[in-house]
Amino acid sequence: MGEDSLHDYRGGLRKALIDVGADIGDHMRVESRGRVYEGTLMPRLESEDDRHIVLKLRNGYNIGVYFDEGTRIERLGQAEKPEFRPPPLPETQEGLPRVSIISTGGTIASRVDYTTGGVHAAISSRDLLSIVPELSDHAIVDADILYSVFSENIESDHWSGMARKAEEKIQEGAQGVVITHGTDTMGYSSAALSFALRSLPVPVIFVGSQRSSDRPSSDAATNLVGVVTAAATAPFAEVVLGMHETTSDTSIVFHRGTKVRKCHTSARYAFQSVNSSPLARLVDGEIEMIAEDYRRRGEGALEVMDGFEEKVALLKFHPGLRPELIDVLVDDGYRGVILEGTGLGHVSEGLNESIRRAIEEDVILYMTSQCIWGRVDMDVYTTGRELQMIGVEPLGDMLPETAFVKLKWALGNSEDIDGARELMRRNIAGEYTDRTLYTGEFG
Amino acid sequence: MGEDSLHDYRGGLRKALIDVGADIGDHMRVESRGRVYEGTLMPRLESEDDRHIVLKLRNGYNIGVYFDEGTRIERLGQAEKPEFRPPPLPETQEGLPRVSIISTGGTIASRVDYTTGGVHAAISSRDLLSIVPELSDHAIVDADILYSVFSENIESDHWSGMARKAEEKIQEGAQGVVITHGTDTMGYSSAALSFALRSLPVPVIFVGSQRSSDRPSSDAATNLVGVVTAAATAPFAEVVLGMHETTSDTSIVFHRGTKVRKCHTSARYAFQSVNSSPLARLVDGEIEMIAEDYRRRGEGALEVMDGFEEKVALLKFHPGLRPELIDVLVDDGYRGVILEGTGLGHVSEGLNESIRRAIEEDVILYMTSQCIWGRVDMDVYTTGRELQMIGVEPLGDMLPETAFVKLKWALGNSEDIDGARELMRRNIAGEYTDRTLYTGEFG
Repeated sequence: MGEDSLHDYRGGLRKALIDVGADIGDHMRVESRGRVYEGTLMPRLESEDDRHIVLKLRNGYNIGVYFDEGTRIERLGQAEKPEFRPPPLPETQEGLPRVSIISTGGTIASRVDYTTGGVHAAISSRDLLSIVPELSDHAIVDADILYSVFSENIESDHWSGMARKAEEKIQEGAQGVVITHGTDTMGYSSAALSFALRSLPVPVIFVGSQRSSDRPSSDAATNLVGVVTAAATAPFAEVVLGMHETTSDTSIVFHRGTKVRKCHTSARYAFQSVNSSPLARLVDGEIEMIAEDYRRRGEGALEVMDGFEEKVALLKFHPGLRPELIDVLVDDGYRGVILEGTGLGHVSEGLNESIRRAIEEDVILYMTSQCIWGRVDMDVYTTGRELQMIGVEPLGDMLPETAFVKLKWALGNSEDIDGARELMRRNIAGEYTDRTLYTGEFG
Repeated sequence: MGEDSLHDYRGGLRKALIDVGADIGDHMRVESRGRVYEGTLMPRLESEDDRHIVLKLRNGYNIGVYFDEGTRIERLGQAEKPEFRPPPLPETQEGLPRVSIISTGGTIASRVDYTTGGVHAAISSRDLLSIVPELSDHAIVDADILYSVFSENIESDHWSGMARKAEEKIQEGAQGVVITHGTDTMGYSSAALSFALRSLPVPVIFVGSQRSSDRPSSDAATNLVGVVTAAATAPFAEVVLGMHETTSDTSIVFHRGTKVRKCHTSARYAFQSVNSSPLARLVDGEIEMIAEDYRRRGEGALEVMDGFEEKVALLKFHPGLRPELIDVLVDDGYRGVILEGTGLGHVSEGLNESIRRAIEEDVILYMTSQCIWGRVDMDVYTTGRELQMIGVEPLGDMLPETAFVKLKWALGNSEDIDGARELMRRNIAGEYTDRTLYTGEFG
């Protein structure tokens, strides 16, 4: 192979590879940022940027090693010519479960996007299997790019789209669905699908990556192998979010979609189950159930309820919050407001008049707590009792973010306010820890 | 003593006491809600309600035992006549440090208020020493009722009032100040005084109680003894918040006023230091410093900067947040907004135009994270870089609530926006974990 085989390597990096006579398939030694990597030079991936040398390590992983003027590249010799392991045809994997991967964007699905700033280059199914070839040991995997968006730009229309795509895949025979997602709002989306996918027969697992692409220690590969294994084999049929449990790679933990929250800006274990235990964990390739009470695989026929009311707000209280902010929502036609109050569920008395007016104008208001942990209890203090008399209902131990998503869903799938209130009180998807799960009919 | 000695006991409880021939000072056995209490019958406290029998237990504590139709009261005999231990005169405690207790309301200061709903009956200095007589072993204590408000109704004018009252007490010779406060917004207030009290020479300690008054297991007494001891003897001179460290009574932990947050609606250990260790703890009456770097007692002469700008908002982002909510703040003359974004500090791109307009109209915008733990980093992803280009500044690992308080303070103590921006960047009171503490001049 000549220098053309360097495919899409460009600029200074391409020049540096040519200078040492490197060719795709050669055994290389690269020293970058104080660390040394040895491996086989791989073609630049479609989704890789201009500043990373792709090496296949002895353990089978492909990594991107950062390249700049300080990087030392050495050609150790010609290794056997690497072959892409093409996505195996389903026929060759008979007996393995089918798992559909739906990509919506985020670090895990588009390693490059975040280093260059573009969002166009979401990873393809071929890239995915080339980067993480072990996936095909666990399942017959197909991958779809549904969206390529930063998760902070995800809105409720995207939730509906994810629900419909998951439905499509399940109807086509997927025995598990994996949704790759940016971590920023993944907790909101996992709550949304927890409500939208009723009578789910298989697991639907959200996964993200907390490490950006320029680090060899990215958790993308281990997370992805873990969640595909779980999607293929787990006994539960719920919407969950699978991520590292601790800083180590030894276990992936599965949080219920309605009880999980991103609680750290950057740590691998950023996601935590709040007011409940996680549902399950994966250790050494085996699923360990933690929850005793969960929905079993195969129960029921999928029903999708993917309406989400646009005009719902989550309003965090702070000292001195002006009542006009509630008035503005009412005047703008908002149909529901989740208050994130203090302590057991309070806001200042100065808001009571505006809240009363909102309720008179058919806006539904619910109370959650900015403490995050614990439950609201509006019977203890006068302020709470008065708010209840005005018509604000407490939401137990439901997360504020989940409450916001649920109110959008309840209003989006009810004919009137009473119907929405009824849905809000029912424990639809484990959002209330201590209420019996609703298993009746809808509508 | 005759039945008149029953003082202010009223209604059914008074009748029940008369029925068994009880008199103040008698040894009583009371069975209430499945538990049995033995102790000396005490006069009803000014601040106690109609449904509690006050008993002095063998351990010296006074408790209120709940009375209803199921309560069994038995008179065991006449004990020695109890004497109130009157607040000792300063002369009798020569050598003990002076500690001033400033009461603003909340469970710890007004046991009754919360059971009956009224907020008028904040505890008096006499009541306080009668309930917790050990206080006078540790300090010469004086107590002032500054406010009697639920903490969800505390606004920035109250913060200024607390700062001025603390200043007054310190100028009168207090060697430590304790501020009793409802727990709901105590973290906001502790941040406010951390900024307002510059060059503090003594500790100023916020304290609250997580247990409502009708439980014999209230943490009010142990918390109060702990913080008074610390106010009298601790080597630090910072604004801190002292509460139970765990569910046990063995240690009181002191969180820096700017790094603490109520993270549970009801647990005793509800308050946690976020992104930093607590400053110190009190175990067996001794202060153990945890932080190495802290402000020492006696350094400098107190300066009070108690201006707080009214027009500042804390805005928590959620998927689908409409840009009009930012426009409304701008149109209403808001001068600053703390955004509580997702992950490393993002909001949806749909808000950028409104943010740009806000900044053009001289509104200052800062970014924090709704993750709560970790730090914002707006250099990693495009969204963050773009927001910075528009003019949104990241606030490192500062808590959103502390950022909100600090922005009110920075705008309230600066002549112009540049001055406020300068204050926001400085590490004034430990609000940034990794920046050197600012020790220069103000103004």
